[in-house]
Amino acid sequence: MNADELQQLDQNLNWHPCAQMKDYETFKPLIIKSAYGSYIELANGKKIIDAISSWWCKSLGHNHPLLKEALFKQIEKFEHVLFAHTTHDTIVQLAQKLTALSLNLNKVFYAGDGSSAVEIALKMSLHTRTLKSQKHRQRFIALKNGYHGETMGALSVSDLALYKQPYAEMLFTPIFIEAAYVDNLDSPLWNDANAHWLKTERILEQYADSTTAIIVEPIIQGAAGMRIYSADFLARLASWAKYHDIHIIADEIMTGIGRTGKMLACEYANVEADFVCLSKGLTSGWLPFSVVLTSDAIYQLFYDDYDRGKAFLHSHTYSGNALGASLALATLTIIEKDNFCVRARELQTILYAHMKEIADKTHLLHNVRAIGAIVAADFVWGHNEKYNRLLAQQAARIGILIRPIGSTLYWLPPLNISLQTLTDLKGLTLQALLQVTP
Amino acid sequence: MNADELQQLDQNLNWHPCAQMKDYETFKPLIIKSAYGSYIELANGKKIIDAISSWWCKSLGHNHPLLKEALFKQIEKFEHVLFAHTTHDTIVQLAQKLTALSLNLNKVFYAGDGSSAVEIALKMSLHTRTLKSQKHRQRFIALKNGYHGETMGALSVSDLALYKQPYAEMLFTPIFIEAAYVDNLDSPLWNDANAHWLKTERILEQYADSTTAIIVEPIIQGAAGMRIYSADFLARLASWAKYHDIHIIADEIMTGIGRTGKMLACEYANVEADFVCLSKGLTSGWLPFSVVLTSDAIYQLFYDDYDRGKAFLHSHTYSGNALGASLALATLTIIEKDNFCVRARELQTILYAHMKEIADKTHLLHNVRAIGAIVAADFVWGHNEKYNRLLAQQAARIGILIRPIGSTLYWLPPLNISLQTLTDLKGLTLQALLQVTP
Repeated sequence: MNADELQQLDQNLNWHPCAQMKDYETFKPLIIKSAYGSYIELANGKKIIDAISSWWCKSLGHNHPLLKEALFKQIEKFEHVLFAHTTHDTIVQLAQKLTALSLNLNKVFYAGDGSSAVEIALKMSLHTRTLKSQKHRQRFIALKNGYHGETMGALSVSDLALYKQPYAEMLFTPIFIEAAYVDNLDSPLWNDANAHWLKTERILEQYADSTTAIIVEPIIQGAAGMRIYSADFLARLASWAKYHDIHIIADEIMTGIGRTGKMLACEYANVEADFVCLSKGLTSGWLPFSVVLTSDAIYQLFYDDYDRGKAFLHSHTYSGNALGASLALATLTIIEKDNFCVRARELQTILYAHMKEIADKTHLLHNVRAIGAIVAADFVWGHNEKYNRLLAQQAARIGILIRPIGSTLYWLPPLNISLQTLTDLKGLTLQALLQVTP
Repeated sequence: MNADELQQLDQNLNWHPCAQMKDYETFKPLIIKSAYGSYIELANGKKIIDAISSWWCKSLGHNHPLLKEALFKQIEKFEHVLFAHTTHDTIVQLAQKLTALSLNLNKVFYAGDGSSAVEIALKMSLHTRTLKSQKHRQRFIALKNGYHGETMGALSVSDLALYKQPYAEMLFTPIFIEAAYVDNLDSPLWNDANAHWLKTERILEQYADSTTAIIVEPIIQGAAGMRIYSADFLARLASWAKYHDIHIIADEIMTGIGRTGKMLACEYANVEADFVCLSKGLTSGWLPFSVVLTSDAIYQLFYDDYDRGKAFLHSHTYSGNALGASLALATLTIIEKDNFCVRARELQTILYAHMKEIADKTHLLHNVRAIGAIVAADFVWGHNEKYNRLLAQQAARIGILIRPIGSTLYWLPPLNISLQTLTDLKGLTLQALLQVTP
């Protein structure tokens, strides 16, 4: 099949995610030939820097040889056996690593993707209220501008109107509160959000007895446009929740496993959540795999004789999938062994300097902010969706994969991206910005 | 790690799906060493027949060499690149095969697992009502005893109280109608459900103007206990829906890709649904991958200039995952080339005869029924959950993996299971049944 035929068939048959398909008429989809490290190679020979780690998941880049090796080794044993009443070496070793990430989260439940992990955490939290005779606690609290996925439960606790509106009849309604956003980590608010917190607490008080859980993207909200908020705010929120016997669900799907310079972003606030959802970077983005970490205290509520009807009867065909588990185990091993948390904090400085240089040179960007291997800046003209799409297209033409969100331009590259590639990324981003005007 | 250590660590750290974990105290999880064809090999050397295809997904058994080859070939190119504004050979070839399964379902949307496919179909259907200025159509209709998954949307349209009760506050409420169940495919009701239909139609009439979609597991309801219902009922239901501009969502997650002896179970009723959800057998159960097939008519409703705000903005990190796509493409190729639909119909006769023989010999089972490579029978004592678990444990000890559902014992083996293995399965099932008494 030549390129034209392939693109035509794609246009005829495939419905792509998160897209107005009419856009594909004027800007044809990129044809992927191969991918390695931080690069995607197109059928026409062009190499493109994957500056967003393919939707934030390729933490160790594409086609990492050690991940490939781990996967092949697992396939030689088996690829997938149902995880009901079975176990295996890989999944137990993975559980050991995952439960070592925190002090108290020592139980692992396995799912398929980020959304399903969020749904499981929501369900587990709510289920405990039946088990503890606290049926008055049925409410969820979430952060304004938060995003947790696209299935009905995950979408209900998300606050992006554009994504929710047509499905309102199917969604439940949480309470949304506003985080204390910071310009960057040097902001005084980062360590002291007292004033904002006092306002928030007054709102929260009325829900103290009726809430089961508060769900947050800790420290940084991805789909909202890489908005960073005060670590002190998160710490106070978690402390308030603990005092009122309300669970914290930490959606670390984007932030987890080194991305922010910590294994879990919650560490910035010294918060240990009751549920932590991980996916994306967990397998370095090879295939769908997710986990929910929780505590023995939660687990024990469900633990009893079968007849007592307390079991968490959530079935998932691919729970504990051995291929995903082998990739997650290898990813965690590499992230730890090669100190990728430290590397992410080094990248924070480099990424910030590069983005700041572009902002200073072009005067098109402001509010440059970075945490770990994430850097973002806002367009001075705010949100212009048409511009965003044109910029992404021009960027792809000259060699970088970026996808601005709302008013925000960001990079979220593989943690093992080279300094040279980062320099190239800076130059090409600058070039694209100057070539497209809103 | 020796077996005891592994099982202890598993008990300490892993929370298994759909389980009361206390059961693991008395019956330790099976330690998987390898798996091939219809067999799972345990660490202790014991070989076990996977009589339920690891929760209905391993349609071509474990570690199929051609699937492995296809996966390796894909990995040599790339494993995963985001599917927003990209395409590739594998996904286009897969789309060609998937859209060839029916006359009008010529668009493919990709997701991660069965639940997320169902959620996408529900969302797409509801979204069309905004797009067509039919906001009065917000209701879903589903079948009593139906099962569609565990995320909030999928769970809402499921009718298994045990799975829903603790989460009632988060769920929306569809209308449930009863299918016309048949004892087997020879039942007159299979081809003529007129009387039952007339009753159903009277109930449905009041919802004709307020409903967006009817979701069904076509022909056979899996989690309900492999309950088969009239093809004529499904045909009449679909025809009524079409007349009233209501969508049919066919959840073919268990039934699709040859399992019932047709590529789609809907074919038994000559029904072409508006949405078809496929997963499980689609990749022969290697890893999470699912699709929603829909029509150009649906697709066109969303197709317009971006500014018109009509896009289906459902994003899924792993949409179009190249590893899953390579496995699905290879599975479809093998299923078609080796005529596994025909084979499934042959298996129907063999499986039925085997199960009937056990029923006749033991007098412990009745209502033997089969369709394609699925056979089921009911325990004469009805539902005894404790017995079910004891039987599954004893079966595992002597060499078969089965998991009775409610009052039902069933086999749903790989489509390429050998005659000898089926004979062994019969013998071992008989033996297990005689060894455990309720």
